[in-house]
Amino acid sequence: MNKNLAKRILEGDIRAASRLMRDIDDRMPSALEPLKELYPKTGRAYIIGITGPPGAGKSTIVDKMVDIFRKEGKSVGIVAVDPTSPFTGGAILGDRIRMQRHATDEGVFIRSLATRGCLGGLSRSTQDIINVMDAMGKDIILVETVGVGQDEVEIVNTAHTSIVILVPGLGDDIQAIKAGIIEIGDLFVINKADREGADKMERDLRMVLEMGRRRENGWEPLIFKTEATLGKGIFELVYGIYRHKQALEQNPELEKKLRERTKTTFLEILESEVMAHFIEKMEKEGRWEKIIDDLMNRRTDPYSVAERIMASELVDLCTNIQKGQSNKEGGSP
Amino acid sequence: MNKNLAKRILEGDIRAASRLMRDIDDRMPSALEPLKELYPKTGRAYIIGITGPPGAGKSTIVDKMVDIFRKEGKSVGIVAVDPTSPFTGGAILGDRIRMQRHATDEGVFIRSLATRGCLGGLSRSTQDIINVMDAMGKDIILVETVGVGQDEVEIVNTAHTSIVILVPGLGDDIQAIKAGIIEIGDLFVINKADREGADKMERDLRMVLEMGRRRENGWEPLIFKTEATLGKGIFELVYGIYRHKQALEQNPELEKKLRERTKTTFLEILESEVMAHFIEKMEKEGRWEKIIDDLMNRRTDPYSVAERIMASELVDLCTNIQKGQSNKEGGSP
Repeated sequence: MNKNLAKRILEGDIRAASRLMRDIDDRMPSALEPLKELYPKTGRAYIIGITGPPGAGKSTIVDKMVDIFRKEGKSVGIVAVDPTSPFTGGAILGDRIRMQRHATDEGVFIRSLATRGCLGGLSRSTQDIINVMDAMGKDIILVETVGVGQDEVEIVNTAHTSIVILVPGLGDDIQAIKAGIIEIGDLFVINKADREGADKMERDLRMVLEMGRRRENGWEPLIFKTEATLGKGIFELVYGIYRHKQALEQNPELEKKLRERTKTTFLEILESEVMAHFIEKMEKEGRWEKIIDDLMNRRTDPYSVAERIMASELVDLCTNIQKGQSNKEGGSP
Repeated sequence: MNKNLAKRILEGDIRAASRLMRDIDDRMPSALEPLKELYPKTGRAYIIGITGPPGAGKSTIVDKMVDIFRKEGKSVGIVAVDPTSPFTGGAILGDRIRMQRHATDEGVFIRSLATRGCLGGLSRSTQDIINVMDAMGKDIILVETVGVGQDEVEIVNTAHTSIVILVPGLGDDIQAIKAGIIEIGDLFVINKADREGADKMERDLRMVLEMGRRRENGWEPLIFKTEATLGKGIFELVYGIYRHKQALEQNPELEKKLRERTKTTFLEILESEVMAHFIEKMEKEGRWEKIIDDLMNRRTDPYSVAERIMASELVDLCTNIQKGQSNKEGGSP
């Protein structure tokens, strides 16, 4: 069944793509083989990352940008990364309205990504989903994340063009501006620009950018003012994306950025695969309770247990994997 | 030198504690041994997690709470987790003013945590720092995180009491409320409660809490209104913390929460140790460039490379670790 999944996706089967993305989201090991098959077809999409605090209007801006991309005849993928819900394990935000609006457009593929509170899971799943959309042949992939957390910054930072959306009236604007997102933005948007404080925010932002920022590639971040609900300023923003794309293409920095992106993605995959093996093994062997008991009673410490597990368990793990690989094929290392 | 570090910390040597925390922040392998030695002395501090969007007034609230704790004669540790700055690798926020205010008080130990954009690094370092403060004998440890990202949610979620701070006037209040933090709060604070929209926010929040929420431990989240800069409502908030602490202590849920916390912490340590070994090994052997070249050219895919590395590299890794362990002592596994 999965054997054909990658092939069906490459042939344009939307349902096959949805199925694989669901498997990715559920962390099904069966997703691995189709992902391997799709990978050679990736690397063609232009990836745009969008972040900013809750309520900044990210969804509306994405929505209006999609309108423009569609009018240009480009196919679009949207990955909406929702924050973890540790109790229900489901997505909380997820802009249902936007989804419905584009739901009938075959050129737009939207996937809301719910994370299950797993270790290091958010970036990994996002990258997998991006790879699927890329292989599907989407011209543009928009990755929208909520918040300014470490994972979110990482996700947006691996895009070709990173857009940071701000909004006046957060109270401590400069603090909000500084909160970890100032240095990842290629483009900045001050949305709801009709609000009081928009001009001051622009001045402050410009100052912060001029002071703090040294970009090796010589790109000077652009600032845009929008009123997204009215569609104001969106065309200029899209034009800004193209300007940045062009600057990247004429610059060796693009190669560097792509290498960095490839490395990060790879490390995330390696990490989650290794941890999945460990956790599965400990769960199967029912060793969790003993380990946690010992830690709770301070009979040992987590640092030593980690060392011991790496030393003893890894040998079994390696043996099993090698066995599995040599069973499958005589593949060279 | 490091041999004595743990001992000196347990004897109350502040400079030794600072030194170890700097090593933790810099990911020095030398931090591991002191952390092992300190672990048996942990588990006594009460850990309070605080999160909320930028500009909500977290620092001010922490500041005022510390005043109350200090008047009660409690010693306090503060861990301020700043978002990643991928370009400079340093902390951006870091409330210097607050730090100066308490800098002369020996009962308060403040550590601002800068993360280096490493994989899974944020939670791991935070837990290590908490362990050091715990071993130092701090009665209360306040962990303050910016933003609503996955890592931040995880950090706050492992505290004994989790406080979510909100502020009216974000524009789309309900959206802000829902952004992933609603389900982790034991206590909610509406700060700047003199602002327009505070009452509506409280009503909305109460509704969301009543609708969406089913907590197994029977704890009904409390809502507080504060004007932190004037000190209004802070005493009530601290009283709320004590009520929640009492509820936890009378409830088997506490045990469950502590077990979950222990497990999460352990997994983070295991993960970062395993990955550190992998990365070091690949860097030493100069294999990165070849791997990334192959991935960039789509000659292979990251999923297969991860499998191969796990299979081949791990054997060497295990052998080395086992060798190292047997050199040190004949320790039982």
